Amino acid sequence: MKHRRPNRRQLLQMGAAVSGSLLTGRPALALEAEPRKLGIPLGPYGERSPFEKAVRWTRESKTPETGSSFTPLHDSFGILTPSALHYERHHSGIPAIDPARHRLVIHGLVDRPLSLSMADIRRLPSVTRILALECGGNSAGEWTAGGGADVQRSHGLLSGSEWTGVPLSLLLAEAGVQSRASWLIAEGGDACRMMRSIPLRKAMGDSLLAYGQNGEAMRPAQGYPLRLLNPGWEGNTSVKWLQSLKLTDQPYMARDETSKYSDLMPDGKARIFTYDMEAKSVITFPSGGQTLPARGLYELTGVAWSGHGRIERVDITLDGGRTWRQATLQEPRLPLALTRFRMEWRFDGQDAVIASRATDDTGYVQPTRAALVAVRGVNSAYHYNGIKLWRVHADGTVTNVEA
Amino acid sequence: MKHRRPNRRQLLQMGAAVSGSLLTGRPALALEAEPRKLGIPLGPYGERSPFEKAVRWTRESKTPETGSSFTPLHDSFGILTPSALHYERHHSGIPAIDPARHRLVIHGLVDRPLSLSMADIRRLPSVTRILALECGGNSAGEWTAGGGADVQRSHGLLSGSEWTGVPLSLLLAEAGVQSRASWLIAEGGDACRMMRSIPLRKAMGDSLLAYGQNGEAMRPAQGYPLRLLNPGWEGNTSVKWLQSLKLTDQPYMARDETSKYSDLMPDGKARIFTYDMEAKSVITFPSGGQTLPARGLYELTGVAWSGHGRIERVDITLDGGRTWRQATLQEPRLPLALTRFRMEWRFDGQDAVIASRATDDTGYVQPTRAALVAVRGVNSAYHYNGIKLWRVHADGTVTNVEA
Repeated sequence: MKHRRPNRRQLLQMGAAVSGSLLTGRPALALEAEPRKLGIPLGPYGERSPFEKAVRWTRESKTPETGSSFTPLHDSFGILTPSALHYERHHSGIPAIDPARHRLVIHGLVDRPLSLSMADIRRLPSVTRILALECGGNSAGEWTAGGGADVQRSHGLLSGSEWTGVPLSLLLAEAGVQSRASWLIAEGGDACRMMRSIPLRKAMGDSLLAYGQNGEAMRPAQGYPLRLLNPGWEGNTSVKWLQSLKLTDQPYMARDETSKYSDLMPDGKARIFTYDMEAKSVITFPSGGQTLPARGLYELTGVAWSGHGRIERVDITLDGGRTWRQATLQEPRLPLALTRFRMEWRFDGQDAVIASRATDDTGYVQPTRAALVAVRGVNSAYHYNGIKLWRVHADGTVTNVEA
Repeated sequence: MKHRRPNRRQLLQMGAAVSGSLLTGRPALALEAEPRKLGIPLGPYGERSPFEKAVRWTRESKTPETGSSFTPLHDSFGILTPSALHYERHHSGIPAIDPARHRLVIHGLVDRPLSLSMADIRRLPSVTRILALECGGNSAGEWTAGGGADVQRSHGLLSGSEWTGVPLSLLLAEAGVQSRASWLIAEGGDACRMMRSIPLRKAMGDSLLAYGQNGEAMRPAQGYPLRLLNPGWEGNTSVKWLQSLKLTDQPYMARDETSKYSDLMPDGKARIFTYDMEAKSVITFPSGGQTLPARGLYELTGVAWSGHGRIERVDITLDGGRTWRQATLQEPRLPLALTRFRMEWRFDGQDAVIASRATDDTGYVQPTRAALVAVRGVNSAYHYNGIKLWRVHADGTVTNVEA
């Protein structure tokens, strides 16, 4: 583990600038002397501190069963998201499923249809992976140059989790996929029967039937008791509350892959089945809506991820893209997971336009908004991965450059 | 990622043996046809399913502010523990600390005493690490061959988390440690002022001032808003609610490193300052108190960890230690973190005495209980890391061999 250590002069300056907290004599020891009464007893299932207020953000809606809630990325650490704050994108609310009654059916073009209980599935060989999950519609507001005022609104349909489940390939082998089969229709157990068409090659690759999230059973909002998990693909394909996998010789052109989750191009045609999430990154601190309390040393930080592999480098600009400096990447850098980047930065009270730019191990470099729009136009609501600029003003406030 | 795939015959046998869930004709599609009403709306901070009941276990006590609560390892996945289920070991309850008022004082044999607010600390360069944390007293019952009836009671003072914080070395450099200093006294802000003596070389090494846990602010039960985190060392040294670090030229012989957290040897002398947690492992499924519902294929799984580095291999016995087979280790294997191991196992209805044996990358091999007792005797309550045997009975029930 590499610790980047600012030199003493930097830190001294920080201490002096921030709050006069660096004392030259004996420090105030008030806390040591203050008696404190017995605290809260041991408990069965812990809660966070009442001083912590981070929540998912949701647009007000008369139909709160359909919509999105956004992870508070500005309050995030590391590469994981607490399950309680994992983003949501539901189309008909979260079903209340009794795992003892839930079954997954694998049928269609198979030799041996299967109907499996959760107990059956949990006995099978499993794997655990830390992965990013991003909604295909994350940062949709950026297409029209409005974007969100803060990083939660602009990029919060993004979360990181440790997932545990059974390789789907294992059960497909067991069911005996017929040679005519080339697609797989995944159907959720929510009221709308969310349905997506998945190419067989993905299902035979790294798709998981996931039931564990961050060390416990997956939360209801993420698909309890079972979800299809397609690493590196837009979140919508990772069908929640999974109850049916049907092998077919063609896709279904379901509502949520035609009316939605397709990319309208400048010529009026739409790309469909654009599953992969390209490399992307965003600075989470400092970001829109935050305020730097004073000049001095800060740690600039954010997350980068790619649906195609590992993050190889992240560069930071402090001058709107004219010059770039390489950020430090937190190890381990796991493929298809969030990667935390950091850089020391001295805010000197001058306007600064800051941004991050991710490069993945395929060599792909996150594009500017202009480069992205030149190809894709501004009709789309999906797969926005442009470089995100924040403006730090002389007074320490931070705003969205494009808004 | 390697998927270990059982061959078709194995799975067919599993299906047939478990529940007749493998159908030769069209499967029951009842769930597909059943209408389902709109589910629960989007929400700000999620909860787990009401069907999930795993909780920390605590001995009944008239003083629940002091004692331990145990992580439900039998219900665990992967290498992380939900913060809500992280083990607890408190000596005077959990203080309710307002982070805006909390300060960390660094004083004693330093040139420039520091008094830092949480805002000061959170501006500094940080690192994130996934680490195991184990109480020095974990598995204490195993010394007397009684042990716990289940893996939660026997090994549950063990959890895995992603921690984020500032390298302590950075602030010690800033404070200017005087040449006479060789120890550091860490003091918590709980009612008992939990205090531990830490050698300076550890503090200048990988110790962290941690404030983030699993992607959000650390939970109160783990030390909110700030804890000293000593990777690989007994949990008690990772002083929670940290408010003071005093540099000294000797240890303090505090209550919790003399009356407790020392290892009484057969000759009546006690070893003190035995900080390192040696390599250890335990099978979490199948484990004491669980029942295999039928013969057939299962995934045997558990966790291994070492305070000295990375887990290099885990071996499994099914015959009480006569023969051993190498388990599959989930990547990434991170130093000082939990490592999940797995092995396919066909339960054929015969008695089996099962156990795991960890080897770390220093070459250290987890000892048998007999080998451990031959050196350490049975007076100790700390640092038990012997191989843990479970007996699977012909009827599928599982018990603690030693109980």
